[in-house]
Amino acid sequence: MNNLRVNSERLWDSLMEMGRIGATAGGGVGRLALTDLDRQARDLFVRWCEQAGCVVRVDRMGNIFARRQGSDDTRPPVMTGSHLDTQPLGGKFDGIYGVLAGLEIVRTLNDAGVRTLAPIDVVNWTDEEGVRFGSGTLASAVFSGLCEPDDALTRTDLDGNTFGTELERIGYAGNVAANGHPVAAFIEAHIEQGPILEAKGKTIGVVLGAQGQRCFRVTVDGEEGHAGTLPMEKRRDALVGAARMIDALNRLAFEHKPHPVITVGALQVRPNSRNTIPGRAVFSIDSRHPDNAVLATLAERMSQACDEIAGNADLALKFEQISHRATVAFDDGCISAIRDTASRLGIAHMDIYSGAGHDACNLARYTPTGMIFVPCEKGISHNEKEKALPQDLAAGCDVLLHVMLERAGIS
Amino acid sequence: MNNLRVNSERLWDSLMEMGRIGATAGGGVGRLALTDLDRQARDLFVRWCEQAGCVVRVDRMGNIFARRQGSDDTRPPVMTGSHLDTQPLGGKFDGIYGVLAGLEIVRTLNDAGVRTLAPIDVVNWTDEEGVRFGSGTLASAVFSGLCEPDDALTRTDLDGNTFGTELERIGYAGNVAANGHPVAAFIEAHIEQGPILEAKGKTIGVVLGAQGQRCFRVTVDGEEGHAGTLPMEKRRDALVGAARMIDALNRLAFEHKPHPVITVGALQVRPNSRNTIPGRAVFSIDSRHPDNAVLATLAERMSQACDEIAGNADLALKFEQISHRATVAFDDGCISAIRDTASRLGIAHMDIYSGAGHDACNLARYTPTGMIFVPCEKGISHNEKEKALPQDLAAGCDVLLHVMLERAGIS
Repeated sequence: MNNLRVNSERLWDSLMEMGRIGATAGGGVGRLALTDLDRQARDLFVRWCEQAGCVVRVDRMGNIFARRQGSDDTRPPVMTGSHLDTQPLGGKFDGIYGVLAGLEIVRTLNDAGVRTLAPIDVVNWTDEEGVRFGSGTLASAVFSGLCEPDDALTRTDLDGNTFGTELERIGYAGNVAANGHPVAAFIEAHIEQGPILEAKGKTIGVVLGAQGQRCFRVTVDGEEGHAGTLPMEKRRDALVGAARMIDALNRLAFEHKPHPVITVGALQVRPNSRNTIPGRAVFSIDSRHPDNAVLATLAERMSQACDEIAGNADLALKFEQISHRATVAFDDGCISAIRDTASRLGIAHMDIYSGAGHDACNLARYTPTGMIFVPCEKGISHNEKEKALPQDLAAGCDVLLHVMLERAGIS
Repeated sequence: MNNLRVNSERLWDSLMEMGRIGATAGGGVGRLALTDLDRQARDLFVRWCEQAGCVVRVDRMGNIFARRQGSDDTRPPVMTGSHLDTQPLGGKFDGIYGVLAGLEIVRTLNDAGVRTLAPIDVVNWTDEEGVRFGSGTLASAVFSGLCEPDDALTRTDLDGNTFGTELERIGYAGNVAANGHPVAAFIEAHIEQGPILEAKGKTIGVVLGAQGQRCFRVTVDGEEGHAGTLPMEKRRDALVGAARMIDALNRLAFEHKPHPVITVGALQVRPNSRNTIPGRAVFSIDSRHPDNAVLATLAERMSQACDEIAGNADLALKFEQISHRATVAFDDGCISAIRDTASRLGIAHMDIYSGAGHDACNLARYTPTGMIFVPCEKGISHNEKEKALPQDLAAGCDVLLHVMLERAGIS
């Protein structure tokens, strides 16, 4: 059984075929959650799972569970998976790898005629990225009991459509209760989305946990005016204020060691007209650090820096925290299982922290959870150029396979 | 005849009634060119003009000319007017005052039974603001022979609609040739859109000319990446670069005396997602100064400042000039007529330069042209809070009336 390996070529081909749905001109994928493209990706995944003999169920949040029966179906399933949605200009691997690695394990077990004791669930979590509805990993949060279904389903996108109606529109508002079924363990495979494994020459990252994250919405209010006639010294330009804040926030990140990451990713200017002085600018801040205390201090310093700039420019400021996730520690048993399996299979590995949030961070509060990272080129992710090597993806999938087998047992 | 005055209340009521079309929650007007709201405003204006006995014609650019016949219709008309379109969050007076002041003059002459020798044309120029199609005063530029009709009609908005098809859609693609008919003189009344008249306690600004203007599009290219995983020192964040440029451009404006005005009014971030490092930021620069040479020097310094910031942050930069208007000097005869009329009517006045571009700046290259400014509160314009006093608006309209009468002659 120790010699069992996944089919690297089949895994790669599935990733490439899935990548055609929402393919962008720049070689990436733009497949926002609950769009028609998301529906197409889900349909393809469901078809593949059914062809592999799985029973597919969909819960109220649109999470898809494909089950490969075990010999003892009274046991809770060992679960793996990730997400099929992407950033607007994302890549072919972020999330998709974790889902199709789960499918590849089912196919590999089928080919080898291996029967597990406990069932295996391969899951596609809805809207991990959080682009449209403002907050990611909501559907796995509901599954894990961290969020009420209705709090998620009533969120709206910029066009005023709700999560719930969009889910119905694409035909994935399932009838299974959203608040989770018993799960023996959850193991998620994912690309690192950072440059560390590549730089250290390791194939497997044994993920110990995830850094904490605080997100903010900053609203800067000045006064609109005519770009040609209002003298400079009389202006209250919201965009100039926001620009100084964005610069200051960036410099702040470099003042701590080890560096937190601070990102202003989204900015809206009102009225956004060439010849009108901007009256309002609204921007997001995403800040992350492995130490909860540093993150809290940072929040205060960021708020102070913005306050000072607003005050000096006679601008009004609203600085709101919109989400807060504490540091996550994964399960010691899962961590050891991943580390030992990689050693046993002779694959170079290292311990690592996750810079990104993942569905696994929610599951960690619900069931023993672990994550397996594989390298991606230059750490580039959330980008059309995101790239991973077929052999690394296969190695991660091999480790996943053997951890799943160990957890599920062989009958 | 010297005692003839316009009806202040009627002028005010017409402004208020027109202001209901596209009224915003904040008390202003949002009536972008060639929208359904623009059509409604045009329909109302045409109805009012026809009720006042005018013959209305529409040219290929959608410019509306309402003619009050003179006793000698072989003479070229004396023309006045402005525009009915507004900024997305604009006011009730910018442009609209000039159009309805023209209408008020026609009504006043009707009431008094005054017949002019030359005809009087009241014009509504299409799309003065240039919000949707990227460049303002295009339709008066075509009339004045400064722009080819097809160069204007084929411009597209952000949804890909062309100026020409939108004009047809709202029913204002007229059949009169677009390249101008003979005009004896053009006088435009307008709110100052700046704080000078109010600060100096003057009711009438005798406009000598308009400052020059250069506009630019700046494209900053970095690299997208994951907000949680890409370490700060490896980032090429386009928005951080753009933010530093916006700050630097603002500071640059304060280094010259007298100050130019430099405005970054519009900014787009790509992909504009909270948890993705921005890969691209595109912003506009609008720079204006009364001295063409200063404006040219400034363009170089702005480009250098952006270049330096881009270089330091490993970002690619494209710095393109997208429009350039040289300083405009109005006609000496029109300037004197306005100044002398204000004196004769006993209205406090001063000479002034226009900070904004106006349709009159195009007409100045076609026919003797002048402009009359009246104060607006705190100089606030391109803003829902834009405000002007009924008595100031009436005073400007009185000056306009007597200058028009002098130019047209009384039969």
